[in-house]
Amino acid sequence: MEATHSPQHGGNLIWAATVANCSPLDILDFSASINPWGPPVSALTAIKGHLRDLNVYPNPDYRQLRQAIATQVNGEMLHESIEADWILPGNGAAELLTWAGRELAQLDAIYLLTPAFGDYWRTLNTFDGNVVECPLSISAVDVDLTLPQPLNSRSGLLINNPHNPTGRLFSSQILLEALKKFALVVVDEAFMDFLRPNQQQSLVSWVKEYENLVILRSLTKFYSLPGLRLGYAIAHPQRLQKWQRWRDPWPVNSLAEAAGIAVLEDEKFQQQTWNWLEQSRPQLYQGLANISGLKPYPSVANFIFIESDYSVSKLQLNLLKQHRILIRDCLSFPSLGDRYFRVAVRKPAENQRLIQALTLITS
Amino acid sequence: MEATHSPQHGGNLIWAATVANCSPLDILDFSASINPWGPPVSALTAIKGHLRDLNVYPNPDYRQLRQAIATQVNGEMLHESIEADWILPGNGAAELLTWAGRELAQLDAIYLLTPAFGDYWRTLNTFDGNVVECPLSISAVDVDLTLPQPLNSRSGLLINNPHNPTGRLFSSQILLEALKKFALVVVDEAFMDFLRPNQQQSLVSWVKEYENLVILRSLTKFYSLPGLRLGYAIAHPQRLQKWQRWRDPWPVNSLAEAAGIAVLEDEKFQQQTWNWLEQSRPQLYQGLANISGLKPYPSVANFIFIESDYSVSKLQLNLLKQHRILIRDCLSFPSLGDRYFRVAVRKPAENQRLIQALTLITS
Repeated sequence: MEATHSPQHGGNLIWAATVANCSPLDILDFSASINPWGPPVSALTAIKGHLRDLNVYPNPDYRQLRQAIATQVNGEMLHESIEADWILPGNGAAELLTWAGRELAQLDAIYLLTPAFGDYWRTLNTFDGNVVECPLSISAVDVDLTLPQPLNSRSGLLINNPHNPTGRLFSSQILLEALKKFALVVVDEAFMDFLRPNQQQSLVSWVKEYENLVILRSLTKFYSLPGLRLGYAIAHPQRLQKWQRWRDPWPVNSLAEAAGIAVLEDEKFQQQTWNWLEQSRPQLYQGLANISGLKPYPSVANFIFIESDYSVSKLQLNLLKQHRILIRDCLSFPSLGDRYFRVAVRKPAENQRLIQALTLITS
Repeated sequence: MEATHSPQHGGNLIWAATVANCSPLDILDFSASINPWGPPVSALTAIKGHLRDLNVYPNPDYRQLRQAIATQVNGEMLHESIEADWILPGNGAAELLTWAGRELAQLDAIYLLTPAFGDYWRTLNTFDGNVVECPLSISAVDVDLTLPQPLNSRSGLLINNPHNPTGRLFSSQILLEALKKFALVVVDEAFMDFLRPNQQQSLVSWVKEYENLVILRSLTKFYSLPGLRLGYAIAHPQRLQKWQRWRDPWPVNSLAEAAGIAVLEDEKFQQQTWNWLEQSRPQLYQGLANISGLKPYPSVANFIFIESDYSVSKLQLNLLKQHRILIRDCLSFPSLGDRYFRVAVRKPAENQRLIQALTLITS
């Protein structure tokens, strides 16, 4: 990836710094949807406390981390509960997506709701999957998802909920319908933890009932640890054991393991994040809505999707050059083109800087 | 993996601690072949200095790390030099082995010198490779390797040099012959850095000449960072770009990236390690050779392979229960069985403890 090219994924600060002619540290980054309040002190303390363990291999079983995740997940479940062997930690959710993609690609067709995260194509192409794109109606914000009709019983569905980049939340009821139609349903819940447990539409409560369900989750967006890499899958133990045989024995590094265990218990940080998001997202939304030519969409996540009357490439370059602010263009979502962008919700004063800069540039 | 089962890989201290009825910290671990002098201070300083970067994704290009590795590799090359795009860092060499295994498995047959690291079978089985085992003559310590004759021109070879668990070094000359016979040759040089550059038999100098050559290396054995996960591949840029498209974009965590850059420049630690190994390995070898019923084999690496007149399972349990010392049985090397074991070279006083314990148990 050269610095002269626009980044394929949010957060490529080196490219942005080159355009803005400043240090990457001086860029105000709205492109990566990362909680601005982290990493929590609990994570950093855990990492420092485990530096002396680096001369030892991680235990391939990751028992303590799996147990900590299972405890957290059980707190979200309506009925039943899962044991640690229903959990598989990974080197970020992206590593687990590799193995989910391998399973999906073995089916006759994989239905992908678009716009979709570029890494979904990566893994499906890696294993020669037959991808069927299903465009989401972006304007239909008030109606639930219409499920695609699968080709045959050997079809799979890969979907994320909340949806990225639109920020929409699909009902668990609709996704339960998908479990009856598709041979395998992979739900990427990377941003689900930004909702309070009682507002989530997670499928965790049905994982024991449906062997064809895989849930992927990230621990690095909510806890601001994308540099450390940590995610997990929830699925039937036999499926996860198969993935464990496929991949190398030590995908999760010891510091990510220690930090993961610590942050899952950090209720103070969780409450602080939910409180901030409930206040800051509506303020940012309103600020954006007040700018002529921009139309923000309602979002349940820590980012907002915006339709623009202006060329987003030009908007992005002007924001970088004049204000050192990086937004996420949607060019890597092939169905969207140059009229949409996405911004993370950040701290109030930072959101204000974005609104002011956008107001100046578009007026 | 349950605590009641013997570990499949060196370094499973939880199993050992259960058997020895003590804390894992109290086990003297000769089973994992990790440099006992690390992690170097340079690594820990780099990690601490980059904790504030954890809220940012690693750059998928890993440009600075690849450049640091290329600089190190160029110092080893006889002629020519390589650029950063001939390097691909991975989440430990094991992650790169996954993609090397996928390429090998596409060939008609993959020749595997046995005994071999269990993870070689893992990756070849994952991608349904047709494995042809080629037993190494363990007693033939004074002659070079005899290459297997490939089935046809669509055959691959996966080999490590120095060889694990025997500690033998094959000549680069013999491996160059393999490059003329096999469609793809993957040389795992995970322990090559324990030899001083002028004593190595690496194939790096030929990587530009042979597009069918892949070299895998680890940075976690020499620098005692197995918990952090870091390795790299050296091969033709087109092959590495293909692997990059196959795998997720951020396999190497930011702390591993920072530590890797730091340790590659840490010449003091490198000299200290080579000096220690040149002194300690012959002492440990002699101590083992003096014990009746044990026959150590000459080694160029940081471990010694030993043939035993005694059952190694029993020896292992007795060492754990009576001395809290863990050795590496060779049961996970299917061709070896219960009469061989491997020990890491550790600090002089620790090696002495092993010799005394083995002397007591076998007398």
